[in-house]
Amino acid sequence: MTTVAVIGGGVIGLAIAWRCLERGHEVSVHDPDPGGGATGVAAGMLAATGEARFGEEPLHRLLLAAARRWPEFAAALASASKKDLSYRSDGTVLVAGTDDDLRAVTRLVDFHRRCGLPVQPLTAAEVREREPLLSPRVRGGAFLPDDGQVDPRRVARALMSLVPVSDTPPEDAELTVIAAGHASAGLVPGLPVRPVKGQILRLRGMGLTRVIRGHVANRSVYIVPRADGEVVVGATEEERGTDTTVTAGGVLDLLRPAVALVPGLAEYELVEATAGLRPGTPDNAPLIGVVRPGVVVATGHYRDGVLLAPVTADAIVELLDTGELPELVKPFHPNRFTDVHR
Amino acid sequence: MTTVAVIGGGVIGLAIAWRCLERGHEVSVHDPDPGGGATGVAAGMLAATGEARFGEEPLHRLLLAAARRWPEFAAALASASKKDLSYRSDGTVLVAGTDDDLRAVTRLVDFHRRCGLPVQPLTAAEVREREPLLSPRVRGGAFLPDDGQVDPRRVARALMSLVPVSDTPPEDAELTVIAAGHASAGLVPGLPVRPVKGQILRLRGMGLTRVIRGHVANRSVYIVPRADGEVVVGATEEERGTDTTVTAGGVLDLLRPAVALVPGLAEYELVEATAGLRPGTPDNAPLIGVVRPGVVVATGHYRDGVLLAPVTADAIVELLDTGELPELVKPFHPNRFTDVHR
Repeated sequence: MTTVAVIGGGVIGLAIAWRCLERGHEVSVHDPDPGGGATGVAAGMLAATGEARFGEEPLHRLLLAAARRWPEFAAALASASKKDLSYRSDGTVLVAGTDDDLRAVTRLVDFHRRCGLPVQPLTAAEVREREPLLSPRVRGGAFLPDDGQVDPRRVARALMSLVPVSDTPPEDAELTVIAAGHASAGLVPGLPVRPVKGQILRLRGMGLTRVIRGHVANRSVYIVPRADGEVVVGATEEERGTDTTVTAGGVLDLLRPAVALVPGLAEYELVEATAGLRPGTPDNAPLIGVVRPGVVVATGHYRDGVLLAPVTADAIVELLDTGELPELVKPFHPNRFTDVHR
Repeated sequence: MTTVAVIGGGVIGLAIAWRCLERGHEVSVHDPDPGGGATGVAAGMLAATGEARFGEEPLHRLLLAAARRWPEFAAALASASKKDLSYRSDGTVLVAGTDDDLRAVTRLVDFHRRCGLPVQPLTAAEVREREPLLSPRVRGGAFLPDDGQVDPRRVARALMSLVPVSDTPPEDAELTVIAAGHASAGLVPGLPVRPVKGQILRLRGMGLTRVIRGHVANRSVYIVPRADGEVVVGATEEERGTDTTVTAGGVLDLLRPAVALVPGLAEYELVEATAGLRPGTPDNAPLIGVVRPGVVVATGHYRDGVLLAPVTADAIVELLDTGELPELVKPFHPNRFTDVHR
């Protein structure tokens, strides 16, 4: 039994805390606003290719492993918390708005195949059979049967019901886990994590059935309908320091491609427009590793924090069990950017 | 001295109440949510041509008279209430986004000339000299030096500070004034007034100096910057009954032309998106007249309630003084649509 203090109550920190508690460790989470950072503005797409990033091999392995762990994680969390997470694993529709976008979608389809992931290319007519609310103007797409989604706010609430969260700084613990998103940079000098602003919309309306990953005029947009009628549209990526202003341009950049792909969204209620700060890193891959004795970092998950929460939590559990992080996670030590420490 | 009960605490009802009080009458206003109807979602443009409607001669006379009365009304209200109304009369810039729109602007310029209103046609370069934040793509426009603006919420608050407002129904009064906007139809059977939904945005940011009445791809949009940094963008016109949902399509229909005309608005904060119900009529002109002994109607001001508030208030004062409405207002009796009563 180890005493563990987790700094940061987003999905990463909360998932770590819950998995450690399950293993019998003594755990506390410290966050003045748990669930209020990047978690609160995440859409919760669970895409094994991350959000369609073409990165390096170790990151692909991590994302694939993360996607595979979600079904068990979702079932265990729903059972332990007795809460509905709005978890679904019934696939995602990739859609191209223009011929240019169709080329981008084709590259993604090839990428899925190379990763050994199931993918089904679709003509324009077939893509509209999958999701009849799509515009007659869409040029084609693909079906990704293994992709899923979950409501990140529900995940955070479920985890918060299971772990002790405090708004005070931690007492001394045997292991301190720094999972404070972009703010982790203020806790570990030199940690290469920065805020990347994301604006996101919540609409409300019925009829849309499928998660849509759209490409329109070289812009990407995702549209995530949930069973309760909420439809999340996201997300911008902006380098604006810690500014979290919702701007006219951010909202326009989301609504324009979303309504172009799904004209019926125009009739949906605009319930909320929010902005949050994702933890970005120089190579868009997470920062997971022991930075000094008794202190481990778990941040930098950028756009994939929800997807990567279970695999990150399992890595910290393994660190407690064995004294080492799993091989899967070793390539993501924060010192990978500084040649001298390699 | 007459006892006057005004049903409806929007700018029309409140202005009537204030002017009647000033003349020594005993006045009460009845509204469970004063200032909360069409007033709360009005931009407060004071355009002598109404919102650029090409209507009939009596309506033009009324709008012109209304515009002429605003300077005195604004000065008297600011003085009596000791409140700043954000009143300005430094002109409006008409702007065309495309060649098609330029033809629409040219028609408006001709219309202003025929009305004897000052108007100054501007080339694309000249229009950008007037308002440097306009896009280099604008095709031309005009300057309307007599148009002004006022903050309708401030006007309502100033008036509310001067008149007694109650949320209970009125007691018996010698004169009952029905100024309840579209809801007046529920108080006077057969009154031809209906709700017309308008969605409006409030942005925040500095730099824009001029009120802009824009035409972009056959859509009109107005952009009203106030001294305190608030920028109102309006407004949609939708026939949706009493629905006041803010929709994705409504917000998109405002942001798209506004950002096309003034690209810098993309950086402005989106503070609020709201929807309200204007009182529309079959001919888009107001309904002002005695409908039965002791009951006068003053509604149906559609998009011009703020502009028409002073002239409407003066008309009711004249009714109390002389027993008759002024000639200017007589063409707007609600019975004008029913031949049998003419």
